[in-house]
Order: sequence, then structure tokens, then C-alpha cells
Amino acid sequence: MKVEYINPFLTSLANAFRTMLGCEVTRGNLRLKDGSSGLHEISGIIGLSGKAVGMVVLSLSEEVALKAASTMLMTETTEINDDVIDAVGELANMVAGAAKAELEEYDLSVSLPSVVTGSNHEIRFPSNVTPICIPYETPWGPLTLEVGLVAAPVTVGT
Amino acid sequence: MKVEYINPFLTSLANAFRTMLGCEVTRGNLRLKDGSSGLHEISGIIGLSGKAVGMVVLSLSEEVALKAASTMLMTETTEINDDVIDAVGELANMVAGAAKAELEEYDLSVSLPSVVTGSNHEIRFPSNVTPICIPYETPWGPLTLEVGLVAAPVTVGT
Repeated sequence: MKVEYINPFLTSLANAFRTMLGCEVTRGNLRLKDGSSGLHEISGIIGLSGKAVGMVVLSLSEEVALKAASTMLMTETTEINDDVIDAVGELANMVAGAAKAELEEYDLSVSLPSVVTGSNHEIRFPSNVTPICIPYETPWGPLTLEVGLVAAPVTVGT
Repeated sequence: MKVEYINPFLTSLANAFRTMLGCEVTRGNLRLKDGSSGLHEISGIIGLSGKAVGMVVLSLSEEVALKAASTMLMTETTEINDDVIDAVGELANMVAGAAKAELEEYDLSVSLPSVVTGSNHEIRFPSNVTPICIPYETPWGPLTLEVGLVAAPVTVGT
């Protein structure tokens, strides 16, 4: 994965949390994902396609997901319900959507988001793709961003 | 979700299992996903975007995943390892890729696949999208296909 791909995602995550949620995030060290997870309880996931293809995973601890949903909905939310699922999907959508605008040379479009739950879930990429994994701390708890993006395969007839 | 969207996915799943794996699948009743899961141990997931946006989930029981990977790799595989993860991602990719070719009026492209594991994982769609969920039986065990696809939102500047 090219390093030039990653910066727009870092910027869009920090912007989304600041402007939508009033929450300042502190970025940890980037690392290449080596199989082990570091994912949290609830993960928004969204596909990218165009001249590159990818998948973005925004994994939030339960506390971060609840605080984010409470802020977006302007009402206290204390359990993972449909509103929280939607909020996490929308955050993943915002992060991917803002980043794709910065990567216009790749002509990316975003898929529908979906949201994975399950206390011990893992989300794995194809073994020929090495996603970049970035841990963050926030006043609400930890979150992790994972981005895997590679040049699109050449296809015939599309 | 429009019903016209779903048939190409049913055809491509049956074709992929027949031609790639020599495995005949038996389709159960289509239903609208109502929150409850019906997912199995390992799920390949792939995004679609274009004039419609979506997500396809191909969820396999562990036994189906192992048999599918063993067939694709032509070597007996007895645990969920990187090869099995790749095989499940590739199957999701084949199902979505063949279906998109049949839905050419929507000008769809597919994202990178990713693969979710975790014994109790769930994959949820945004609450304004009602995916169609199709259970299958195979000689190797059960699998489930879920497809959520909606008209793309109108965006400015993209």
C-alpha cells in the first residue's frame, strides 16, 4: 500500500471527530497490520473502488461508539442499538468520503457501510494486501483505523 | 431494495460453487433481514459502488469454509488460516464480480474483500437499508448470502 494513500484518511478522521463530535483524537504510531487485530467492540467498514480498491475499518470501543452516537443524536445512549449502529456506519462513511475527495486521481467511490459487532470479532484483509493500522486515543477511550488500498486489478469488459 | 437486484447474486453464487468448487447449493427462502443474524463462523464481505451502492456478505460455516478452501487449494485444510481467509474473500469477490456484470446498467465496481471471523459476529447494515438474506444448504453444511443495495445518493462535486 502506498503511503500517499494514508494521509487523507488520517486528516478526515481527525476532522470528522472534531467537527461532528467535538472530540479531539490523539494518533498513535502507524503500523502494518500483521494478522493480530487490535480491533474494538464495534467496527464500521466501508469499501472503496475506482482506480484503486480498498476497505476502510473504523473500530471503536463500546464507550467511544456510545459517546459518539449520543453526541450525533443529541440524546444519551447507553446500549448498542440501531441508532449506534447507524452512527458508526455514518462515521466510517464520513472518514472514507472525505478521504476519497482528497484522492481524486484514483476516482474512488464508496460502498454502503456496514457495521460488525461481536466481542472478539476480527476483520482480515486478503494476504496480498497489507493494511495500515493506526491506533488513536480519545477522551472517550480508544479507537483504531485500518486502511487497505491497492491499485485496481485490470479487468476486461468493465 | 429492488428485487431486480437480487437474481444476479443468486445465479453467481450457484455458478461459483458449481464451477469453482464442484458443489451444488440448495437455496432456502429469501427473507428480509430484520436485525437477527443467521450468520455463520466466517463471512466474506465486499462493497459495491456505482449508480447503486451496496454490500455483499457471504457467510460460511467453518466446515463449508474449510472444504471450499481445500478444494480451491487442492490440499486438505483443517483450520482457519490465511489460505482459508483468502479463499473466502475470493469467493465473495467472485459472487459480487459476476453479479455486477449482470447489473451493467448500474455501472458497479467492487471494493477489496475483507473477511470477518469471530464465533458470534454480526454484520449490520444501515437502518434505512433492508438487505435480502438467503440461506443455503450444501453437502458441506450451511451458508448464507446477504445483499444490501440501494440507489446511490446524489453527490455534489464527484
